[in-house]
Amino acid sequence: MNKEAPSPFNLISPTDYRYSVKELEQYLSEEAFVKYKAKIEGVLTKTFAKYGICTPKIAGEVVQATSQIMASDVYKEESKIKHEIKALVNVILDRVSDEAKPFVHTTATSYDIVDTANALRYRDATKNIILPDMVKLEKLWIDLAKREKDTIQIGRTHGQHAEPITFGFAIAQYVNRWGNRILNLKTTTDNLVGKFSGAVGAYNASSLLFEDPESFERDFLDEGLGLKPAEISTQIIPPEGVTDFIHSIISSFGVLANFARDMRNLQRSEIGEVGEPFEEDQVGSSTMPQKRNPINFENVESMWIKFMPHIVTMYLNQISEHQRDLTNSCSQRYTPELLMAFDSSVRRMNRVCNNLQVDRENMKKNFELNEDKIIAEPLYVLLAFHGHPNAHEYVRKLIMTSYQTGKSLPEIALSDKELQSYLKKFSNMQLEVISTPSKYVGIAAEKTEKVTLLWEKRLKKAKLW
Amino acid sequence: MNKEAPSPFNLISPTDYRYSVKELEQYLSEEAFVKYKAKIEGVLTKTFAKYGICTPKIAGEVVQATSQIMASDVYKEESKIKHEIKALVNVILDRVSDEAKPFVHTTATSYDIVDTANALRYRDATKNIILPDMVKLEKLWIDLAKREKDTIQIGRTHGQHAEPITFGFAIAQYVNRWGNRILNLKTTTDNLVGKFSGAVGAYNASSLLFEDPESFERDFLDEGLGLKPAEISTQIIPPEGVTDFIHSIISSFGVLANFARDMRNLQRSEIGEVGEPFEEDQVGSSTMPQKRNPINFENVESMWIKFMPHIVTMYLNQISEHQRDLTNSCSQRYTPELLMAFDSSVRRMNRVCNNLQVDRENMKKNFELNEDKIIAEPLYVLLAFHGHPNAHEYVRKLIMTSYQTGKSLPEIALSDKELQSYLKKFSNMQLEVISTPSKYVGIAAEKTEKVTLLWEKRLKKAKLW
Amino acid sequence: MNKEAPSPFNLISPTDYRYSVKELEQYLSEEAFVKYKAKIEGVLTKTFAKYGICTPKIAGEVVQATSQIMASDVYKEESKIKHEIKALVNVILDRVSDEAKPFVHTTATSYDIVDTANALRYRDATKNIILPDMVKLEKLWIDLAKREKDTIQIGRTHGQHAEPITFGFAIAQYVNRWGNRILNLKTTTDNLVGKFSGAVGAYNASSLLFEDPESFERDFLDEGLGLKPAEISTQIIPPEGVTDFIHSIISSFGVLANFARDMRNLQRSEIGEVGEPFEEDQVGSSTMPQKRNPINFENVESMWIKFMPHIVTMYLNQISEHQRDLTNSCSQRYTPELLMAFDSSVRRMNRVCNNLQVDRENMKKNFELNEDKIIAEPLYVLLAFHGHPNAHEYVRKLIMTSYQTGKSLPEIALSDKELQSYLKKFSNMQLEVISTPSKYVGIAAEKTEKVTLLWEKRLKKAKLW
Amino acid sequence: MNKEAPSPFNLISPTDYRYSVKELEQYLSEEAFVKYKAKIEGVLTKTFAKYGICTPKIAGEVVQATSQIMASDVYKEESKIKHEIKALVNVILDRVSDEAKPFVHTTATSYDIVDTANALRYRDATKNIILPDMVKLEKLWIDLAKREKDTIQIGRTHGQHAEPITFGFAIAQYVNRWGNRILNLKTTTDNLVGKFSGAVGAYNASSLLFEDPESFERDFLDEGLGLKPAEISTQIIPPEGVTDFIHSIISSFGVLANFARDMRNLQRSEIGEVGEPFEEDQVGSSTMPQKRNPINFENVESMWIKFMPHIVTMYLNQISEHQRDLTNSCSQRYTPELLMAFDSSVRRMNRVCNNLQVDRENMKKNFELNEDKIIAEPLYVLLAFHGHPNAHEYVRKLIMTSYQTGKSLPEIALSDKELQSYLKKFSNMQLEVISTPSKYVGIAAEKTEKVTLLWEKRLKKAKLW
Repeated sequence: MNKEAPSPFNLISPTDYRYSVKELEQYLSEEAFVKYKAKIEGVLTKTFAKYGICTPKIAGEVVQATSQIMASDVYKEESKIKHEIKALVNVILDRVSDEAKPFVHTTATSYDIVDTANALRYRDATKNIILPDMVKLEKLWIDLAKREKDTIQIGRTHGQHAEPITFGFAIAQYVNRWGNRILNLKTTTDNLVGKFSGAVGAYNASSLLFEDPESFERDFLDEGLGLKPAEISTQIIPPEGVTDFIHSIISSFGVLANFARDMRNLQRSEIGEVGEPFEEDQVGSSTMPQKRNPINFENVESMWIKFMPHIVTMYLNQISEHQRDLTNSCSQRYTPELLMAFDSSVRRMNRVCNNLQVDRENMKKNFELNEDKIIAEPLYVLLAFHGHPNAHEYVRKLIMTSYQTGKSLPEIALSDKELQSYLKKFSNMQLEVISTPSKYVGIAAEKTEKVTLLWEKRLKKAKLW
Repeated sequence: MNKEAPSPFNLISPTDYRYSVKELEQYLSEEAFVKYKAKIEGVLTKTFAKYGICTPKIAGEVVQATSQIMASDVYKEESKIKHEIKALVNVILDRVSDEAKPFVHTTATSYDIVDTANALRYRDATKNIILPDMVKLEKLWIDLAKREKDTIQIGRTHGQHAEPITFGFAIAQYVNRWGNRILNLKTTTDNLVGKFSGAVGAYNASSLLFEDPESFERDFLDEGLGLKPAEISTQIIPPEGVTDFIHSIISSFGVLANFARDMRNLQRSEIGEVGEPFEEDQVGSSTMPQKRNPINFENVESMWIKFMPHIVTMYLNQISEHQRDLTNSCSQRYTPELLMAFDSSVRRMNRVCNNLQVDRENMKKNFELNEDKIIAEPLYVLLAFHGHPNAHEYVRKLIMTSYQTGKSLPEIALSDKELQSYLKKFSNMQLEVISTPSKYVGIAAEKTEKVTLLWEKRLKKAKLW
Repeated sequence: MNKEAPSPFNLISPTDYRYSVKELEQYLSEEAFVKYKAKIEGVLTKTFAKYGICTPKIAGEVVQATSQIMASDVYKEESKIKHEIKALVNVILDRVSDEAKPFVHTTATSYDIVDTANALRYRDATKNIILPDMVKLEKLWIDLAKREKDTIQIGRTHGQHAEPITFGFAIAQYVNRWGNRILNLKTTTDNLVGKFSGAVGAYNASSLLFEDPESFERDFLDEGLGLKPAEISTQIIPPEGVTDFIHSIISSFGVLANFARDMRNLQRSEIGEVGEPFEEDQVGSSTMPQKRNPINFENVESMWIKFMPHIVTMYLNQISEHQRDLTNSCSQRYTPELLMAFDSSVRRMNRVCNNLQVDRENMKKNFELNEDKIIAEPLYVLLAFHGHPNAHEYVRKLIMTSYQTGKSLPEIALSDKELQSYLKKFSNMQLEVISTPSKYVGIAAEKTEKVTLLWEKRLKKAKLW
Repeated sequence: MNKEAPSPFNLISPTDYRYSVKELEQYLSEEAFVKYKAKIEGVLTKTFAKYGICTPKIAGEVVQATSQIMASDVYKEESKIKHEIKALVNVILDRVSDEAKPFVHTTATSYDIVDTANALRYRDATKNIILPDMVKLEKLWIDLAKREKDTIQIGRTHGQHAEPITFGFAIAQYVNRWGNRILNLKTTTDNLVGKFSGAVGAYNASSLLFEDPESFERDFLDEGLGLKPAEISTQIIPPEGVTDFIHSIISSFGVLANFARDMRNLQRSEIGEVGEPFEEDQVGSSTMPQKRNPINFENVESMWIKFMPHIVTMYLNQISEHQRDLTNSCSQRYTPELLMAFDSSVRRMNRVCNNLQVDRENMKKNFELNEDKIIAEPLYVLLAFHGHPNAHEYVRKLIMTSYQTGKSLPEIALSDKELQSYLKKFSNMQLEVISTPSKYVGIAAEKTEKVTLLWEKRLKKAKLW
């Protein structure tokens, strides 16, 4: 354990010296963790008073004492006795009267405090910081999608030009996926629970003092902390709650990573459809001053590369022997790193998307590159619809001809003798699509509007907007 | 591609030659996959008829043709043209009249069919086989928990004897965790969706034929297949739905693995509290005929070790460039292996738990090993409650004395001079706990009853019981 | 266990029905596994004869019997007695005389046979098939690198145009990384070992028959099978050998995946520098007949996405309790799937690279897109070298001017007043680079030659060429 | 970026506030990283002087300047210009004369410095701290193995009593596996390389100044830093070198985790064969003062659970597009965390193993629990050897009789009529094993001696002892 105050640069973890989110420290730092645990010890004694186990005065004394405890005090004591929670309890005991001492931590086991504190601070960090940051990004994307809902862009599958969409429609995909993750994260956060069932979960100690120890547990967690108790627990809360919560975070991170991948591909020199905002003093490369690199998009994908595998840790932490072993202890201390890294990436995307450069000219230029081949699909669909028995194969051959002769596909198709009898049946609208590929954009714009509206409504209903 | 019918032993994957679940083949085999895709092509044409695009007679013809297609036909065609869905379409086209040909697959893109087929068969496999198998195990555990709710067992934390529980209470933990996963899996299965939005998701092709292509999509998926459409899609359905579904499966697998770990520890030679059922002809070891190994518990943990990391594949599959790339294609073909491996493990646990050997004598014997130390906790709690200012530390020292002198802790405590003033305040019940450690079991039995009842009710409400 | 001969399409694992490599079945199928184990039982008895434990005649009889055993026989027996190796032994016993029976499997434990068989077949599969396939790809890349060593291509970092390289130089990177992996895999394959130390590794049984049981182990493994024994073992071989071997495979797979990623980016519609070979009948898209998708490159990356996480399984398999538990048993049965999937991907790349389409015109065209900016680096380096105190910053500003005015960087630089005093000091060669960006290619061609030669030599020295 | 000096408890990462290894900070902290990079910039200018590019005086000036740079200076500049290496260069430029400025960082690209600095500091950290810590543990285990080489212990497979070993023999397994990892880590550390090939790896810039830029690279890396150059590189060093290095670390961590798992199982209340040393003031449990938990063993397994999945990050970092993308940048900044976490765990094991409590009495007691069944194997082996046609099956039935009648296996066997004709052929030694199970320990002690000696020699030869 490192007891001196380090320079931020004596640190090893980039989460602290490079990707820190100041506002999250109050929930996720070790100091915060100690404060949450101390607070819970205070609430415990307060609930004792409610049940007549101790006097309100004693409860007040303990609450007062716990409100001033610092991590450094606890670590000092822990270095002697090698037990994290007993150290905290000793520090509290040192600060209360002999009369109050018996009502500190009584009938509690360490993990009644630790697991409850983690549930509480993960919930607070998520509700107060992470979800709002995610909603902020959702709003930026909704605005972007609406603004660009008619901006024609070539849809790409396999990296190849496929069929037209609009840029807003492409963004609407992320509006939908991200909105879905926001609600998923809200649900799994709401499912985080606390416990006060003792060392093996059977309320062995608390049933010495209370007729109905489950009722005491409910009151302690609910009124004091706003949490529900686990349906049943061992020394620890069933791990699936936190596992689901982390899955929410990591699968959200995946959506962000996919967005970043897309954007950095669209920023390629040959494509140039979007660009990160670039500050005047910013240096793109130490040797190539002309470079404008998508460093923020790369950063986000890289953070995901680092933190995504943490799910394996969570799954391994599901295995705890009998009424618990401690092999989930160190590993779960790293959960805050994931939360901060994720939020740091969300904020980065907020900064970038707030001023994302969209190059409509390049979108148009790229669209026109293979414009004439785009009508292959509507052509074969309409030929088939109007009775051609083998339209797909026939159009495929016309394409080959187009490649070989250099003539455009519309030109070849409209003058193809065999097709005349079918083309006659085409409606005007259908003929227009065949000759003007950019019309072949389906309901991209309408869908963009509909989806953005849908998520506005849903997030408002969930009181997140 | 391997076209000959192999002996099961020419195979490479143990899922097929060793851990296969026959009843799942109708959903998860390649033959099943082809049948699902063909069926969807049939339903598509049927929905065309509903919308007046083709006649009911044509629809009937296509449905009839698609109902007879075999994987071998499709693979033969695919080996020529290197495209899985076009091969399927060609095979259908070969079997219908020229009149019907234009209405086969029209306006569909491959992944309208593939993604919808996967959603459908994963849903069917889960609802018809996997969830019922999970519920069967839940019932076995509920019965076991109830039956053993009063069987005293020493609770273990860190592998060390801690405080008493009952064996039923230990099982009730799994009743709760497993029940929770069953409902979680049901939810994520219900969230699997289909799509019919074309090659880039903007309904480019289908909007050529339909005023409201979304309405067509809804009808096609809902009436024909019982699925809802994705809110918006690219060429593919947003990946989060399947990712959540697989997280449900793998986190359920983790509960099973934890149970297996616990049981094989309880089956250790020195502990001997449970045992796998053992058939008369079964051989425990090729060289040690006396061995009775927990091979089924080991098997389940091993299958989890193999399949748990598949989540990383799912997270990587969240990244698909632009309107999709194909890097999720091979990898998602392996999802059925995970489903079958999981179900195979659930069934194995059903077989074992149906006849799990519980050795109450050994549970009692083990409990008694450290019986006298067990009262340390109630002793210190009650001393504190009755006013001792430093009870935890005081009792810790009594323990040390107990270790050094060999005297039992109750003996030492009850005769300790300094404690007499506190002991006088103990109620009879409290004194009884101090002298009879097995009474210090909290509300283990009541909680077991309550939790088993809770899950019976919840599963009935979810119509899974 | 599935005992009927399935249609290849009743299967669940794509490795068998879709990505199978026929030549690997003799090593990696379950049939092959049984044959390897049976062979080892035969060699064991043969070694007994060498040590005078049994007669050569008996050894011959056992060898003969073991040479004809089929997996189906063993599985039939296993279904009765639930023990894989005892089933094999029983099948052998059924086929030898009473006189020979005592010398079958005597003093062996199951994993003497299983672990040795796996080491043997992984080694054979790697040396006979996988390494040669890898070397074949290395040769194709060497040829390609040499052929294209002078083909100018824009080097890309962050997806942005950076400085010139040649296409051959880009390929030479893969020649080097792949060659390095080939040698790494050879080393880890050579490190695979066998064992014959019995149920807990202390030669308990074999020391009943042999004065020096380690000498017997060495002879059995070496003369009979060409393997070395583990330095020491429990019931199983120390897991690090196989773990290193799998790390070799997976890290090789990563090189392949990187190559595939690069190629499919170079095949993007806007870039078009390379293309997969495309057969005449091949269909690019079921709805977009014009598409030429990089499906093989996507396939390889997808297979890597599926199989890369298997390393987690290997690391978990490092943990085996005491003298072993069985939680590595099922999971290690899946190792052959990884080997086959990898080789299948190598072969796919061999097919593609054998006829990779390189579009030098597009390479040139793309190079010229930002040609004028390329000289930024040599300009600032040479300015600095010739005494400019702040060359990097100065050139960065010239670039900004170039963007704003549309004038080319060379034009701006050569006419910049402040720079004249430095430009005068430039040599002719240096001035040439400033005006002809394609000259700024460093030693790309020489390095390509050198590296390809290096790996030819190394692979020849390792007798792999 | 967090610029204030934090309290250690405002931190998020436990690596810094809880598991820090002070001695590693000089290599792994951000301060150290900056210092390494600055040093390399100094060595670069020094090598320029050697090649006559600048004067020795200038080189001296730059070396002097770089030796005093602090991370805080660089971070301050980076916050302005958003480029890590350009910021470092600017800080150097600020501290040297105008005459020297042109020779700072000239022809270098950022990753010439970054990748080389990482190779260097990982090498130094490993050679100076990690490997010596590992060797220390190896020595402790060798001592322990030798000391306990004759201490009888029951060998356990599947958690079940199997055949006798000695405790020293069990430890010798770890001596062997750990020794093997030490050499593996040494090899992969020695394979870490540097680079000086510029922005796309073709020596574009350096070939402006040097006839033979590869020769300059070799001299710069070798004489200045003791590194070899990569055979060929892009902007970055081929990733396989670091990937292999991390695989060495993580697979070593796995050996540690396996040891920890074994020890905590042996410390179970019912087994009690080993114990962690326990300080007098240490508290085992906040509520159960009697507990002695294997917290250090649990801690080590937990750290492994956290850091093992980092390999997935490394494998993902193998994919870098074209001449590199930046998605490996943040993620590789976390590599030092893994190194420190590993070393912290090695040190923890050193502390524990230095005073591991071995309870020979309990080992004996546990051994005796099933002592009589132990002879099953030698009995059937010797019966077979002496001609019994079906010895394994026959002995298996005797065991059943033993379970049913409660008679010991030797008793039943020696009085079995059918066996008399075989028993007569037993040698005295063979009869002794049958009646005295603890003799059935094979060559456990000899093997322990041999293996410990082997590793002493090998480590001495590798100059690590």
